[in-house]
Amino acid sequence: MRAKLRSVLLGKAIKSAESESQKYSAFWGLPILSSDAVSSVAYAGEEVLLVLIPVLGAASYKPLLGVAAAIVALLTILVFSYRQTIDCYPQGGGSYSVASDNLGRLPGLVAAASLSIDYVLTVAVSVSAGTAAVTSAVPGLLPFKVYIALLLVAFLTLGNLRGLRESSILFGVPTYLFIVSVIVMILAGLVKVLIFHDVPAQTAAMLPRETGGLSVLLLLKAFASGCTALTGVEAVSNGVPNFKNPAQKNAKKVLLLLALLVLTVFVGICTLIALYQVVPGSSETVVSKLATNVFGTGSVMYYVIQATTTLILVMAANTSFSGLPQLLSILARDSYVARSFADRGLRLNYSNGILLLSVLSAGLVVIFQGDTHHLLPLYAVGVFLSFTLSQTGMVLHWRKVRGERWKHKAVINGIGAVTTAVTCVIIAATKFINGAWIVLICIPVLVLLMLAIRKHYDHVRANLAVTQDAGALVLSHSVKAKILLPIQSVNKSFIKALNYALSLDGDLEIYHVSTDASVTEKLLNQYATLGLKEKIVVEEAPYRNVNELLIHHVDAMEKKLGAHEMLTVVLPQFIIPKWWHNILHNQTSIRLRASLLHRRNVVVVSIPYIINE
Amino acid sequence: MRAKLRSVLLGKAIKSAESESQKYSAFWGLPILSSDAVSSVAYAGEEVLLVLIPVLGAASYKPLLGVAAAIVALLTILVFSYRQTIDCYPQGGGSYSVASDNLGRLPGLVAAASLSIDYVLTVAVSVSAGTAAVTSAVPGLLPFKVYIALLLVAFLTLGNLRGLRESSILFGVPTYLFIVSVIVMILAGLVKVLIFHDVPAQTAAMLPRETGGLSVLLLLKAFASGCTALTGVEAVSNGVPNFKNPAQKNAKKVLLLLALLVLTVFVGICTLIALYQVVPGSSETVVSKLATNVFGTGSVMYYVIQATTTLILVMAANTSFSGLPQLLSILARDSYVARSFADRGLRLNYSNGILLLSVLSAGLVVIFQGDTHHLLPLYAVGVFLSFTLSQTGMVLHWRKVRGERWKHKAVINGIGAVTTAVTCVIIAATKFINGAWIVLICIPVLVLLMLAIRKHYDHVRANLAVTQDAGALVLSHSVKAKILLPIQSVNKSFIKALNYALSLDGDLEIYHVSTDASVTEKLLNQYATLGLKEKIVVEEAPYRNVNELLIHHVDAMEKKLGAHEMLTVVLPQFIIPKWWHNILHNQTSIRLRASLLHRRNVVVVSIPYIINE
Repeated sequence: MRAKLRSVLLGKAIKSAESESQKYSAFWGLPILSSDAVSSVAYAGEEVLLVLIPVLGAASYKPLLGVAAAIVALLTILVFSYRQTIDCYPQGGGSYSVASDNLGRLPGLVAAASLSIDYVLTVAVSVSAGTAAVTSAVPGLLPFKVYIALLLVAFLTLGNLRGLRESSILFGVPTYLFIVSVIVMILAGLVKVLIFHDVPAQTAAMLPRETGGLSVLLLLKAFASGCTALTGVEAVSNGVPNFKNPAQKNAKKVLLLLALLVLTVFVGICTLIALYQVVPGSSETVVSKLATNVFGTGSVMYYVIQATTTLILVMAANTSFSGLPQLLSILARDSYVARSFADRGLRLNYSNGILLLSVLSAGLVVIFQGDTHHLLPLYAVGVFLSFTLSQTGMVLHWRKVRGERWKHKAVINGIGAVTTAVTCVIIAATKFINGAWIVLICIPVLVLLMLAIRKHYDHVRANLAVTQDAGALVLSHSVKAKILLPIQSVNKSFIKALNYALSLDGDLEIYHVSTDASVTEKLLNQYATLGLKEKIVVEEAPYRNVNELLIHHVDAMEKKLGAHEMLTVVLPQFIIPKWWHNILHNQTSIRLRASLLHRRNVVVVSIPYIINE
Repeated sequence: MRAKLRSVLLGKAIKSAESESQKYSAFWGLPILSSDAVSSVAYAGEEVLLVLIPVLGAASYKPLLGVAAAIVALLTILVFSYRQTIDCYPQGGGSYSVASDNLGRLPGLVAAASLSIDYVLTVAVSVSAGTAAVTSAVPGLLPFKVYIALLLVAFLTLGNLRGLRESSILFGVPTYLFIVSVIVMILAGLVKVLIFHDVPAQTAAMLPRETGGLSVLLLLKAFASGCTALTGVEAVSNGVPNFKNPAQKNAKKVLLLLALLVLTVFVGICTLIALYQVVPGSSETVVSKLATNVFGTGSVMYYVIQATTTLILVMAANTSFSGLPQLLSILARDSYVARSFADRGLRLNYSNGILLLSVLSAGLVVIFQGDTHHLLPLYAVGVFLSFTLSQTGMVLHWRKVRGERWKHKAVINGIGAVTTAVTCVIIAATKFINGAWIVLICIPVLVLLMLAIRKHYDHVRANLAVTQDAGALVLSHSVKAKILLPIQSVNKSFIKALNYALSLDGDLEIYHVSTDASVTEKLLNQYATLGLKEKIVVEEAPYRNVNELLIHHVDAMEKKLGAHEMLTVVLPQFIIPKWWHNILHNQTSIRLRASLLHRRNVVVVSIPYIINE
């Protein structure tokens, strides 16, 4: 039953040998790896506006373009910086690998922690933003936004447990659709305003009043908010091994195209916002308002824009679903997280990581009630922290490796490191009270946790390791077994256990704890009919604590054992086919087995007796 | 740690031999057994008024006295009827025993089911009513009434787990205090009105208008509501064995006194209500209003009345805490409920029954938000159903046993049976939509459940019973063991298991499931250093389903076993002292053991390897 359900939901199992399946070309790699970066522009412009509008009112649109220009400059630096990472790390240059390789264990773990937080936040943010695109188009769905977001998380979880990676075409199409339709919108909007001078009047009238002046702090805040547009750039350098050969060349090509796309779409959308003087509102996204302005309410193109926006945001969330489980599997192999994160599931994916991501992001959606804006401050700090660590790692890498024109290369990565570090500080400082402090607390906590887990694994490994000659540990002489068989009544289950205990051919003791003299007498009479030479040892339990006395007795017997001797406790256990029937039976034998297993020289033998239906 | 906490909370363990400890005299038995009955008058009058006032308005007070008279008449019949039950059942004549003895299994179970429901409802109702007395005196506590009620349930649970029965004096005093202070209030109230003609004017003015006329249906409804005053009468006949000798004589004396007390208090309170024309309101109880009228707001006697009312209502709840666990233990011995309800705890009480009652009544308090009135319709149906069954059982008892003046006795019980049956029908009919239907559904469901549980126990007993000559079942010849030892890596835990497996002296097979060829090669090299003659059987797992393949292999080996042969699977298990560290380790061995235990001829041996701290 369970296996069948699993195979319907997840598909057939995949063999380990099929691991190296489809790799992608530059054409299909671009949409898959860029969905996160391209999609962030769907909300980055809005975030910048949300900072500027309350202070500057209608005067916000010129600074918006300035902030957009600064973000594009930062993007350019990142692209050149990351092209070099791709050159050096053909096996995939995630921040964790680069930082721990070049900066050491602690910076590596900091990068891993901030990346993990980002992956979880990406899912929550993208799914919430995708939901916002849906509710902008269909306002009637607004009360159900949390459920819609959770449904999307569930869909992504199931899809990834099945292994969505196979269907790269299925993934690429929505991204291209989004890019094409947004570019159509940008061009149509520009034509409308610049050539036909067709700007709707009512939007300008609705602008809030100016309440303050332009200040450096305000610009920094706006810049910090807009930097969410740059998340997802790292995905390409992470994914180098997934490209067709020549992998590195393809990856670098994709990175460049990605930058051009982000540039076009982000600058285009910010320009349109400025031209149409769109005001962000809580129930409709800025992109939705733009589309209404450009194409008119209820037009087909409006719905195309909303639909493709939703799709690409869900695709962006999907980036995390391949990223976090991958990162966790690397961390698991290095013993920094639970080892089960390195286990591949039925469909060859890291199912435990997928499930963890699903639970955590669903939790965030519920806690923040599907409100993207509240999640964003948490988001960018970690992204830029990992950028900084990775780029700093690259600088040290060049210093160590040297090689052709290494100083030149080190300078490029150095510029990347410095600018991302400055951005990180700006975001942390300006967004501190808005929630960035949460991330700054979470990162050290996660790092300490990972160190503790590593320590535990090291400890267990040291305990289990065979250091001396393994052959010498195998006993050459035979040891006669000491066997203890508890008895509470003479029934078929006991007799089965007794037969097994007799077959072990050791010193057998049959032991009874008496809570009621009349019951014990009946038992002894029944036992007498078995005709055994072993006598029953009876102990009185005036306080009715049968298990406690049995454990004391086992402890006493264990103390008397000689070298290499083990005490074998034979426990009859009857098995009831329907699990819920177990409520009707004493769970004492289960608890008893659990406590007996914590004794060094006590072996527990479970003899099943199956109750027929 | 845990044992210490337990002993602080619950006291020291009590020996089984001390079971027959303090029994009570008539003087202390009266307050203990009557608390339920006497306390119900604290809300019964109010319930009658709540039915009458909305229809009759100020004209309600004469019918109130009529209804009270009918209830007193019913009480008189019950007392004579139950005196005869005491005579016949010196071992305690609960409805379950009397009905199943004389009417058969099904009526007995119906009585048991309705009694069980009543016990749970008694706790919820009494605790809610006690809370209402507190919030009437201190209205500021009204928003916390659910928490206060839950606190009282917790207090009763803890008290009963400790075994409150010992402290009969502690229990008797509040009841006597209540009786004395209520009688003082009744006398003072009567004197004030009848001699000094001192009735507060404003209360009469606040009376609602008459909206309808007096009808038979209205009177029946009022009667049904007031019958809650009669619950708890059965407690005396249940508790006969707890009396000092002559037990039956003492019990009958107590039953008579109880009836006199209920009569005095109930009639007195109803008279006062009529004289003062008290109107029931949601935030203050009728008794509280009476006390205000008689003694004045904020007087000492007012608070004495409220405090003793609270105390006696809590005591009434306590009746259930000895009643339900006792009933469940009898049902458990007859295999109609889980056997663990017959286990005596540390302090000799039936702790599982106490805990069940606590959870269920707390649940009801939360669901009904501590509102007594909503719970009452659920309450009385079951009580009168069990009265009827018990009295009908007594009639059949006399017919069967005959003896001196049996016809006379049968007539008395017959009158009891008929009147309680009529009352039961009245309550069920008039209160049907108010919630009585819930009880009428719960009773058959509980009966079916109890029958199913009995069937299961009978089935298990038949499966385990040794029917033929037990000695013949013990094998006379020795069987060579087949042993399977799975290996995933060569470590100290495996070597410990290996040594044990070798000591068993059977056919040992060492079995490895390979998910990764390089890991397997390393393993085989390490294994070679052990210098064993047993070769490792290696199976490939292209789908990484190690446990599944192992279980298939065990199944295949089990099929090849000869008669009386068992397959012993030796499972190394490493034990980590801190339980939460287990999250970091695969739980596969635990799941594996659980599935292997469901195979008839497979014995599972667990070899512990304890990881040092």
